[in-house]
Amino acid sequence: MKNKFTFEIVSNQGRARAGILNTPHGPLLTPLFAPVGTQAAVKATTAAQLKELGASLILANTYHLYLRPGDELVAEMGGLHAFMNWDGPILTDSGGYQVFSLADSRRIDEEGVTFKSHIDGSLHRLTPEKVISIEENLGADIIMAFDECASPYDRDYNERAMKRTHAWAERCLRAKTRRDQALFGIVQGGVFPDLRRESATFISSLNFEGHAIGGLSVGETKAEMHAMLEVVDEVLPTQKPRYLMGVGTPQDLINGVLRGVDIFDCVLPTRLARHHAAMTRTGRLNLMNAGFARDPNPIDDQCACYTCRQFSRAYLRHLIVAREILAGTLLSIHNLFTLVNLAKEIRQAISVGIFDQFAADYLSRLEDPENNDGAGLSREAD
Amino acid sequence: MKNKFTFEIVSNQGRARAGILNTPHGPLLTPLFAPVGTQAAVKATTAAQLKELGASLILANTYHLYLRPGDELVAEMGGLHAFMNWDGPILTDSGGYQVFSLADSRRIDEEGVTFKSHIDGSLHRLTPEKVISIEENLGADIIMAFDECASPYDRDYNERAMKRTHAWAERCLRAKTRRDQALFGIVQGGVFPDLRRESATFISSLNFEGHAIGGLSVGETKAEMHAMLEVVDEVLPTQKPRYLMGVGTPQDLINGVLRGVDIFDCVLPTRLARHHAAMTRTGRLNLMNAGFARDPNPIDDQCACYTCRQFSRAYLRHLIVAREILAGTLLSIHNLFTLVNLAKEIRQAISVGIFDQFAADYLSRLEDPENNDGAGLSREAD
Repeated sequence: MKNKFTFEIVSNQGRARAGILNTPHGPLLTPLFAPVGTQAAVKATTAAQLKELGASLILANTYHLYLRPGDELVAEMGGLHAFMNWDGPILTDSGGYQVFSLADSRRIDEEGVTFKSHIDGSLHRLTPEKVISIEENLGADIIMAFDECASPYDRDYNERAMKRTHAWAERCLRAKTRRDQALFGIVQGGVFPDLRRESATFISSLNFEGHAIGGLSVGETKAEMHAMLEVVDEVLPTQKPRYLMGVGTPQDLINGVLRGVDIFDCVLPTRLARHHAAMTRTGRLNLMNAGFARDPNPIDDQCACYTCRQFSRAYLRHLIVAREILAGTLLSIHNLFTLVNLAKEIRQAISVGIFDQFAADYLSRLEDPENNDGAGLSREAD
Repeated sequence: MKNKFTFEIVSNQGRARAGILNTPHGPLLTPLFAPVGTQAAVKATTAAQLKELGASLILANTYHLYLRPGDELVAEMGGLHAFMNWDGPILTDSGGYQVFSLADSRRIDEEGVTFKSHIDGSLHRLTPEKVISIEENLGADIIMAFDECASPYDRDYNERAMKRTHAWAERCLRAKTRRDQALFGIVQGGVFPDLRRESATFISSLNFEGHAIGGLSVGETKAEMHAMLEVVDEVLPTQKPRYLMGVGTPQDLINGVLRGVDIFDCVLPTRLARHHAAMTRTGRLNLMNAGFARDPNPIDDQCACYTCRQFSRAYLRHLIVAREILAGTLLSIHNLFTLVNLAKEIRQAISVGIFDQFAADYLSRLEDPENNDGAGLSREAD
């Protein structure tokens, strides 16, 4: 239904859910993986290529677009959908993570954050009200409340940042004026179960249309991330969608869905592509490797993406060695397809009640699941 | 007809011709513009995008592919068509131009050229026989004889280079073993009408399947280039295809066809794209220009390319300013479409007998045809 958000869970298996999230720009089938278009462009790929590889939801970064080209310019050009030519659903983050990881000279107070642009050093101030105004100008279907993302192991800082995130969440809800955007609140709390529980309880007590889990994949271990997801999963209401921010290796998707997550995003597939690495169902391949120079096989002979249907490892290696831009495009298409398609396979497995087995098989096929995780790369803007 | 080269002129208007060149990988409708895939990749575009924008013939560079990844590797991978996934016709140049413009420490003798690779300084020697062997390994449909490209105004050097090119042309014909490749001889002679006449006479006396015109768009004026085309046009037999090497602005296509040329190639469209410039039917636009920041129009509202159908100047400028790789891809698609499609429009105009008027209208629409020519950019490998 146009202009109306609904979320319906169509099947369950354990904590894993297959759902439909309706948005003004069409339905989203969950679980799903959203490619990241930091600056209103998924790096090295066209909208047509994203459609062809099966992407449904695209993420864009509020912090970057506020600084350049500016949210008012985007609004003047008809909003993000028209500007970047994506007629499907779009999600914008809150800019919180970028302010705390990218900007210079941050000064945080209860009202908001003052910082210098990483692009030109210009001075800016973001408050919850300002962030909602920016996200309303950008016009994504799903928008995020402004949050403060703390270093995962610093308990005092996490307590303060969580309280600020809660106060800002209430202000974001009050500031919102558009009815055609779904606002999600963000759960924080670092690696501390009691803080995560408190945050999930508070955020879900407010009237958000969905819940995001922030402050993970920022340096903690996989075991800690999984423990936090389990704590949060117990508290969050099942009938609202859950979005695990900035997380996206194949094993993360499996482990997230096992713990009740519906939506994932990550820069990893496009970033790895620019570093010559292909994500496959059995681990990563560095295609720069001389061993691929005369390899006539595709990256993955079971993969149905454009790159694997048409090009050999030998050709991809040649493009990398010859520094052809096309290497980044072809690897991005493959890596994005791997995650987008994995989410679809997970959905299918849940629907027919075989997800537990699917998950066990998938994780066991990965040669080295704990080392292939891309921690540290995952939450940053691409 | 598979495995057979034929060239048929289906209509004429003055010196302009509309033809069909049959190759083992399908028919080519001439006049045509061939995108350049220097290293077996047209920069920043996929084969699927090239098909969609209407490209028929793709050029690849013998010098570059010989050095990297090596012609033997390409042969082992099934030849260029399989390697780069282009199932249409491919043309390879002879490497001559690159040896004389890119390589280090050249030493030319009557037998061939010894030079150092511009990539790693390694020592190499190309002779006519070696070049044919490389081009047979690469396996393009249309291949070029090894030639020496001289500085256009040096008469003595042009005389010597022309004689060497003629001797090498005969040796290339003798060295050729594959029957599924068409070998073209190259006319040289700088800006000197008598040398051009002599070269065209000699080259066309041999048994080539087509004729290329080399050593133009290398620093001479447009008037000189046109004069040389007219001299050569008088001598070359009309029933064989003519290829003007490395030339490709919109006005060059018009002026070349007016002087009997059938095939063009140039790196200009993809190179300009990486420098933020769009080729349009009325001249060039630098999309970095601040005036485009809030411009909701496409590059050219009469253009049917993917970029113009889907994206605004404002968005393209944003991608350029934000240094997104996608800018290069979208501008390459537009610029390549502009030339590929112009050649199709020229063919249509010849077929219905209105090419003279079409040419006059087109040239008068260009704001500054003589300054917008990209001379000096045009012959280099991309």
